[in-house]
Amino acid sequence: MFDQVSIIGCGLIGSSVLRRLKKNKLVKKLVCYDNNKSVCEIIKKESLSDHIASNPIDAVKNSDFILIAIPLSSFENIISSIKDNLKPGSILTDTSSVKIGVDNIVKKLKIKNVTWIPGHPVAGTENSGPNAGFPELFQDRWTILSPDKNVKDSEIKKTSLFWESMGSKVKIMSVEDHDKIISLTSHLPHAIAYNIVKTVMASDEKAKADIVRYSAGGLRDFTRIAASDPIMWKDIFINNSSLIIDAIDRFSQSLNEFKKAIEEKNSEKLLKIFEKSKEFRKSIIKAGQDTDKPDFGRK
Amino acid sequence: MFDQVSIIGCGLIGSSVLRRLKKNKLVKKLVCYDNNKSVCEIIKKESLSDHIASNPIDAVKNSDFILIAIPLSSFENIISSIKDNLKPGSILTDTSSVKIGVDNIVKKLKIKNVTWIPGHPVAGTENSGPNAGFPELFQDRWTILSPDKNVKDSEIKKTSLFWESMGSKVKIMSVEDHDKIISLTSHLPHAIAYNIVKTVMASDEKAKADIVRYSAGGLRDFTRIAASDPIMWKDIFINNSSLIIDAIDRFSQSLNEFKKAIEEKNSEKLLKIFEKSKEFRKSIIKAGQDTDKPDFGRK
Repeated sequence: MFDQVSIIGCGLIGSSVLRRLKKNKLVKKLVCYDNNKSVCEIIKKESLSDHIASNPIDAVKNSDFILIAIPLSSFENIISSIKDNLKPGSILTDTSSVKIGVDNIVKKLKIKNVTWIPGHPVAGTENSGPNAGFPELFQDRWTILSPDKNVKDSEIKKTSLFWESMGSKVKIMSVEDHDKIISLTSHLPHAIAYNIVKTVMASDEKAKADIVRYSAGGLRDFTRIAASDPIMWKDIFINNSSLIIDAIDRFSQSLNEFKKAIEEKNSEKLLKIFEKSKEFRKSIIKAGQDTDKPDFGRK
Repeated sequence: MFDQVSIIGCGLIGSSVLRRLKKNKLVKKLVCYDNNKSVCEIIKKESLSDHIASNPIDAVKNSDFILIAIPLSSFENIISSIKDNLKPGSILTDTSSVKIGVDNIVKKLKIKNVTWIPGHPVAGTENSGPNAGFPELFQDRWTILSPDKNVKDSEIKKTSLFWESMGSKVKIMSVEDHDKIISLTSHLPHAIAYNIVKTVMASDEKAKADIVRYSAGGLRDFTRIAASDPIMWKDIFINNSSLIIDAIDRFSQSLNEFKKAIEEKNSEKLLKIFEKSKEFRKSIIKAGQDTDKPDFGRK
């Protein structure tokens, strides 16, 4: 595939990429960098990388493919520090959940002889850090690539093949479409999950114990994504704020209509909503994006 | 335990009780009734009951313990039809998710020589009907019993033992406290789940395909409970409307504050919310109410 690949940031996503690359022996030389020493120790202990660089410049200078998998708030700093040391002809890509912002940062720097391809593997768990990574994280999930129109097909093809070697399927989409779709499929659900937890936690202490006890009635489903990495999510909400606010407004409008249907005891309207929801769940299962086992197959 | 037990309604809950009772040979005679013929055929085919009665009166007349597991909207009809044919000294109980309404219905009928103990096993999956039932549905979940203060301890004890034999843990709580707690742990999450699905489904057809494709970013978690039985949930929202509306209002207020924090790019406030949510998830796992496996252990 590539002679040398660099992974910058070795959390859940970066370490899962490392694990897959190592497991399937996909590249000649694997280099990584993380600004957190304890993260580097885990990578070293598990022999997930051929070389652990002590700074971002050393990590990228001879690489053909550089994958940035760090929180959005660190993105500009890292890119600025490596921009003059990238190998001519290399591909620079990332895994961020919001694309317009990072795309602007890279374009503003006008990096020469390097192909920039914004990317986002739509995969993850509620856990974070290198111990949470595993080689099958991207299996059967989608990775969205958002290259500019003038990017060569050959470079898009190489980047697609990289993600396909991770087990992922690849879709090309503009950064604008990406940020809008993901604001609905990921950012809005996270906003809602955080707020439902916040709402129930505002109860008194006695009620709180009861809420934990009876959470299997539905609430516990929401607490999973509400346990995701706080820094990563703070960055996402700030970076994609206007589209997320738009999604929240649409949701609030829907919720108000629903509330009215309950107040009016409008059985017909409620039934229609619930039956459509059931159909939507079916389409997600049919598309291979969730298990058909009841309760997610929980045990 | 009891010589004869009757199960009225053999959907997910009723059939799971039947399965557990049969599997562990817990009662001498098991009688059931369901107004849906195809449901009865499944019960018959799987030999889940010693007798399938052709009407509710025949189903209950000689039983020591009668469990009503039907949609709320059918409750009054069924209770009215059986009230004069219950065995003196028997226990009448149910599994409804809203308690004040059914409690009022039964009390209004002033049934003599029968002990009424409202009950609610906080368990279930997104699937419905007898084919979805299984004997371990109640294992390690909580069942809430809400008997009146004048109900004899011996009868509460018998009903508790019944649910413990299902693998459940039992908690005693007033009907008022029940409806309030469950409005937060179950009814509000369902209202939210239906509305997030409704919001994203309002997109155009092209976007809808994308939404399904990238649902693993968070959305798919919500679609599970949004696929629950429409009739059951229509009844719940109508029966517990005022407490659910109150919960929705509290949620909306929280969401508005959150929206403001995003608009103001208030990192500190967002981080605080996310870190608290993470703690709450931990407390649910610690209480044995969810798996600690990432992604619910999905495969």
